Amino acid sequence: MSVTEVPSTILQDGLLQIQGEVDAAFDAMMPVPDDTRARLIEAMRYAAIGGGKRVRPLLVAATAGMFGVDRSAAVHAGCAVEAIHVYSLIHDDLPCMDDDDLRHGKPTLHKKFDEATAVLAGDSLHALAFEILSGDRISGDPFTRAELIATLAGASGMGGMAGGQMMDMVAEDADYDLQSITRLQQLKTGALLAASVEMGAILGKVAPEGRSNLRAYARDIGLAFQIADDLLDYEGDEEKAGKALRKDDEQGKQTFVTLMGADGARDQARALVDQAVGHLASYGSDGALLAALARFIVERDR
Amino acid sequence: MSVTEVPSTILQDGLLQIQGEVDAAFDAMMPVPDDTRARLIEAMRYAAIGGGKRVRPLLVAATAGMFGVDRSAAVHAGCAVEAIHVYSLIHDDLPCMDDDDLRHGKPTLHKKFDEATAVLAGDSLHALAFEILSGDRISGDPFTRAELIATLAGASGMGGMAGGQMMDMVAEDADYDLQSITRLQQLKTGALLAASVEMGAILGKVAPEGRSNLRAYARDIGLAFQIADDLLDYEGDEEKAGKALRKDDEQGKQTFVTLMGADGARDQARALVDQAVGHLASYGSDGALLAALARFIVERDR
Repeated sequence: MSVTEVPSTILQDGLLQIQGEVDAAFDAMMPVPDDTRARLIEAMRYAAIGGGKRVRPLLVAATAGMFGVDRSAAVHAGCAVEAIHVYSLIHDDLPCMDDDDLRHGKPTLHKKFDEATAVLAGDSLHALAFEILSGDRISGDPFTRAELIATLAGASGMGGMAGGQMMDMVAEDADYDLQSITRLQQLKTGALLAASVEMGAILGKVAPEGRSNLRAYARDIGLAFQIADDLLDYEGDEEKAGKALRKDDEQGKQTFVTLMGADGARDQARALVDQAVGHLASYGSDGALLAALARFIVERDR
Repeated sequence: MSVTEVPSTILQDGLLQIQGEVDAAFDAMMPVPDDTRARLIEAMRYAAIGGGKRVRPLLVAATAGMFGVDRSAAVHAGCAVEAIHVYSLIHDDLPCMDDDDLRHGKPTLHKKFDEATAVLAGDSLHALAFEILSGDRISGDPFTRAELIATLAGASGMGGMAGGQMMDMVAEDADYDLQSITRLQQLKTGALLAASVEMGAILGKVAPEGRSNLRAYARDIGLAFQIADDLLDYEGDEEKAGKALRKDDEQGKQTFVTLMGADGARDQARALVDQAVGHLASYGSDGALLAALARFIVERDR
């Protein structure tokens, strides 16, 4: 099923709304200065504004929305997660990493600018994430700000995204089994998706012991997201994806598809989404957007 | 005057103590895991443990010490600043940036490991800085934690260190005058040094309006530090420095030395240090370590 066939409009509306809000917030946060830093900020804007699906900001905003959080606070927290996601894409695309030329259908940052600017723009977006979360736009309550920062920093460093990226970098030689691939993906992709849901709950002042259903939802969609990514990489359309595909296979890396087969992977992703949606049962119709987002994650075509 | 000739032992003792504390804290924070992330954490440890002068952690700890802050909290906040400093050195040394082979007298991280690991280890140390500051080892008061994070994030991103680095990258073509070089260095080096002092004051719960003398001190030593760096680059000993020197000159970049002459630069650095020490007058003997550190900053030989 392609994006345009998603039955409910709740997801389409949700995605369109958050895409506009994130772009507007990033635009306001990154005015191009009248000095020689201009090139850096132009590069940050090139990478951060427009193009992204904004799945992570929508996870923050949809979760926060269930608990009556101020929309602007949720959007800004979503921008912080997205800034981390975008910086990781910039650095992953570098010649010394995945060496990719295309991202969201346009030249990668180091192709459009240069490598040094790409390193620096990534670093600046990384710092921006924590600038956003430590500002009082997010919450008047410093405990909330500190908890958001602990969650995002933990999910993005050596115990999260960057650690998973390292595991991925040595994957060619490591010959991972299904358990190892699952662990790798929980760190590389799952940690930031889970942090997005967690941050929505933190903004909503949900106590940690009240977050277990949301955490279970996040864990399931994180894994489903990566299985769907592997399926897209295996059988997707490069033009729709806006980036090079089938690189894992060329590099001889194990993926969910090589380990489970395409049909097995698809069944597993759908089962995980059903399970994720099940965890939202107690929220009734308040959980509709998170449920629609879970379905989108496995049915998307890019 | 070389380090060994510094008359007061207060500085020597202070540096030795903080060097041991920072190394021990980093060691405890980065246990090598029993999985394929090991290479990442080994790289982080290679760059972060041992070798550094630890000027920034000493600035945090010396300032915090004036206000009776718990030593462990100050050391951990110092580690957060140092993690940012170390990540910036790793990324600056990359082939696409300054392409340096030597740092603290040993191979740079991308030479010892590889470029991809260096990018990722820098990113992970960047995240670690904010993990440290958001943890309750730093302060039981979340307002203090949030203020520390806002200060460090602001000093390291596009409005601070990374912005200054961008200005430096275009310096060959920009033909900066003294005012522009001063602005560049205030961002590239000064922002993080100033943040170190500010963070000590934040830990000490000094209200913003009570920080003006400390801020003036930090501004003066930040500029003096960079002038001293330019002098070392111009007339220093590569073996003592443990890194390649005279690269700015080769690249035709303006520095404080090219703009003021070596003698003029030296006079200016010393005048700035005298002025910095003057700002500490109201603290009496409590300011002795910060004063000694200011003198060290211009008299060091590496």
